[in-house]
Amino acid sequence: MTNPGSQTWSTSGIDLLLEPAKPGVRGLRARLEEGLREAIRSGRLVRGTSLPPTRGLARDLGVSRGTVLQVYAQLAAEGWIAARHGSGTVVAIGAEGYATSGALREPAPVRWRFDLRPGRPDASSFPRGAWLRAVRRALADAPDDAFGYGSENGQLDLRTELASYLARARGLRVTASDLLITTGFTQGLGLIARALAATGVTRVAMEEPSMPLHREIVRAAGHTLVHVPVDDEGAQVAGLERRRRVGAVVLTPNRQHPTGAVLSAARRARVLDWARASGAFVVEDDYDGEFRYDRHPLAPLQALDPGVVVYAGTASKTLAPGVRLGWLALPEPLRAPVAHQKALADWHNGAVDQLAFAELLRAGAYDRHIRQMRLRYRRRRDALIQVLKTAHPQLRIEGEAAGLNLLIPLGNAQTEAEAIAAAKLAGIGLDGLAGGGYYERDPAAGLIIGYAAAPEHAYSRAIEALAQSLRGRSA
Amino acid sequence: MTNPGSQTWSTSGIDLLLEPAKPGVRGLRARLEEGLREAIRSGRLVRGTSLPPTRGLARDLGVSRGTVLQVYAQLAAEGWIAARHGSGTVVAIGAEGYATSGALREPAPVRWRFDLRPGRPDASSFPRGAWLRAVRRALADAPDDAFGYGSENGQLDLRTELASYLARARGLRVTASDLLITTGFTQGLGLIARALAATGVTRVAMEEPSMPLHREIVRAAGHTLVHVPVDDEGAQVAGLERRRRVGAVVLTPNRQHPTGAVLSAARRARVLDWARASGAFVVEDDYDGEFRYDRHPLAPLQALDPGVVVYAGTASKTLAPGVRLGWLALPEPLRAPVAHQKALADWHNGAVDQLAFAELLRAGAYDRHIRQMRLRYRRRRDALIQVLKTAHPQLRIEGEAAGLNLLIPLGNAQTEAEAIAAAKLAGIGLDGLAGGGYYERDPAAGLIIGYAAAPEHAYSRAIEALAQSLRGRSA
Repeated sequence: MTNPGSQTWSTSGIDLLLEPAKPGVRGLRARLEEGLREAIRSGRLVRGTSLPPTRGLARDLGVSRGTVLQVYAQLAAEGWIAARHGSGTVVAIGAEGYATSGALREPAPVRWRFDLRPGRPDASSFPRGAWLRAVRRALADAPDDAFGYGSENGQLDLRTELASYLARARGLRVTASDLLITTGFTQGLGLIARALAATGVTRVAMEEPSMPLHREIVRAAGHTLVHVPVDDEGAQVAGLERRRRVGAVVLTPNRQHPTGAVLSAARRARVLDWARASGAFVVEDDYDGEFRYDRHPLAPLQALDPGVVVYAGTASKTLAPGVRLGWLALPEPLRAPVAHQKALADWHNGAVDQLAFAELLRAGAYDRHIRQMRLRYRRRRDALIQVLKTAHPQLRIEGEAAGLNLLIPLGNAQTEAEAIAAAKLAGIGLDGLAGGGYYERDPAAGLIIGYAAAPEHAYSRAIEALAQSLRGRSA
Repeated sequence: MTNPGSQTWSTSGIDLLLEPAKPGVRGLRARLEEGLREAIRSGRLVRGTSLPPTRGLARDLGVSRGTVLQVYAQLAAEGWIAARHGSGTVVAIGAEGYATSGALREPAPVRWRFDLRPGRPDASSFPRGAWLRAVRRALADAPDDAFGYGSENGQLDLRTELASYLARARGLRVTASDLLITTGFTQGLGLIARALAATGVTRVAMEEPSMPLHREIVRAAGHTLVHVPVDDEGAQVAGLERRRRVGAVVLTPNRQHPTGAVLSAARRARVLDWARASGAFVVEDDYDGEFRYDRHPLAPLQALDPGVVVYAGTASKTLAPGVRLGWLALPEPLRAPVAHQKALADWHNGAVDQLAFAELLRAGAYDRHIRQMRLRYRRRRDALIQVLKTAHPQLRIEGEAAGLNLLIPLGNAQTEAEAIAAAKLAGIGLDGLAGGGYYERDPAAGLIIGYAAAPEHAYSRAIEALAQSLRGRSA
């Protein structure tokens, strides 16, 4: 992937060559010669690297061009460098190739023939054209200030567009000033956990099951975890009333991850009552709330009481995980503490992504993309359910009303492990409720099947392969 | 900035309107009507917001288009909405304008008439055209995987290009596998501090003076700070040998921030000896090492011993702070712990910025930009020194050999505060050694003047204004 021949030099790189490599090497010409030799010997300059043009190098070093020409001629005579037609002078011999060989030491990422892992959208659907147009317009229009150090809350222009979108499309009660732009829920959860710790909170409640990474992030901020069991109506939040000094609860109310249960209206009211009564906060992880195939979703918790709910959204499922854009809508008391944690974490999000996302929202392209993907994922869900019901009518299917995954409960962890091993043999990647580490105590078993990750052209074969690999297995 | 009229709806936004706002409101038509009224009353839908086209809404809700047309007609009759030529149907009356008015509550960022603050490059020089070309090529060429969840180390393609660049231009001994991509030194320092804490380190040494934010980041990871005083030869690292259980020292060896002192060759050798002997690490913050106007910079510490030095570089000074791109070259024992902290912090950097930066490196555009900026900043430095020497021959100037700032020592904090107040009155932003919080004990006093931040067209006037405001002040 490296093409050193096409690269140019910066003066400081040349300067480094000028250090006396050995005592006794004196004079600029001798030092430049020996510095170049040493750089090639040590692998700092690899074969094919272009040397700077003699004229520019002479100017940068403040010597005559003749001196540089003499150095190059001497090294060429010794075989270290060579003039190459069209590329100027290049390094002609290889050392151990230090700068390029190292990359080979890394394992390649796992690629599944059939990717049915949960929590992943179709990365091939990232709207490259719309994003490029948004970047072009953003770079044309943005003031210079946009590229300097910015607000830890994120760019006001983006927050304004996003507040309008969230009010309109997700029903939030939110203004630009309530929002803080993050690089995704991973970062957002860490910011909240550390901000709560800074205000004296030591105990945070989390759903059981939940993402192992999320538990680790909250614990890394110093908190003790309180487990909230989950059933068909979502998290059993009534239990919080009997626990002491719990400063916050992290919920996936709109689609419990990974079971798919929706927090019932009664429990929504109850957890908000608990938060108000105990001075605690509710963190609403709305990780894929854009993808609902039912007609009547419940309102987000945030809309019911913006004063006690931290709403967390993300573009990881709607655009792509690689975009690394998320947002928090914060109750007033948490705004300054969370913004301070953002400053400590990384100051603020990158400017170009923020500008481009604001453009995408403004132009309506984000809405259009979500609408299109919702239709696509709904079709995929329907096809998956049909294939499964036809091939395995005995299997139960849960959590299919929304989101990008569904769940097939299995009898025990052994059955789950066997089903996942069989799928793996067939080149299918999926996740297990027990094996995936979602539970810390008494894991339930089941397959978590993501129907969004596979590229469109491979999807039909993927679900046929899944049905095939499930042959002979049942709950 | 919001233009709600240009936006489209997502189905879930409509769905939310369907909740019965009041008990007793039954039937889809009545619920849609009342839901829309309530959304406008509550400010969730602001004046000018486009309603979805009747045909699409009917399809999404699974009702006849006639039902939707009746709802719209009823609401139009009541004055809530109106047909607008070219925009379809829009919200016609304003509530309290919840979604747009909130932005006004925020204070505008400070804008200096003459920006001479240190540590900031000229944001107007961000190479927008080159960046756009790099984004275009990256979006055209990248595999779909690039937009999925990626490696916490960063994209291999970028790390390969960067390793080659760092070896060539900065003299590092580095491979792609040694590198981890961050969002800048702020994040990098936090990752290192937490990784060290996870391996049992509790005491970290830092320069006095140093950036207050950096001290706070290290302390937030749980460390006790050990102060290393600074003199004309940089940090007094010999003192580390008498301290116990110091697990790392954070240095700015190539240009001490903010004094500008360069760590001497003898001290470089000594601090590496100390690190090897005590099993500690040296963190080399090379925040603006690309900008050297001298001929013979010392080699980076990392090149002397990659086994004990964490090298930290950034594009904040070479491209723009808003880009939020940095990198760490890590000794082998720290690679996995730091990568794990990156996963906990935000998984990995955004894909498009990484792809674009790799393109910029590959095409040589990064080298060219740095070369151009180095010449520009050198001219600015020369002009500033000349203006200061002419107007105030009695002032001492330090730290002018490299970087983007220089230092004018002053007698005491009182003199410094007066000089900064006078500058502020003249619309000049700069920083103070004592007032800026760089020292925790016995602050020295002086003005830290950044000659990079001002846009090119305003620079001459900025330094003339500075010379004017310094009239009557001296060390």
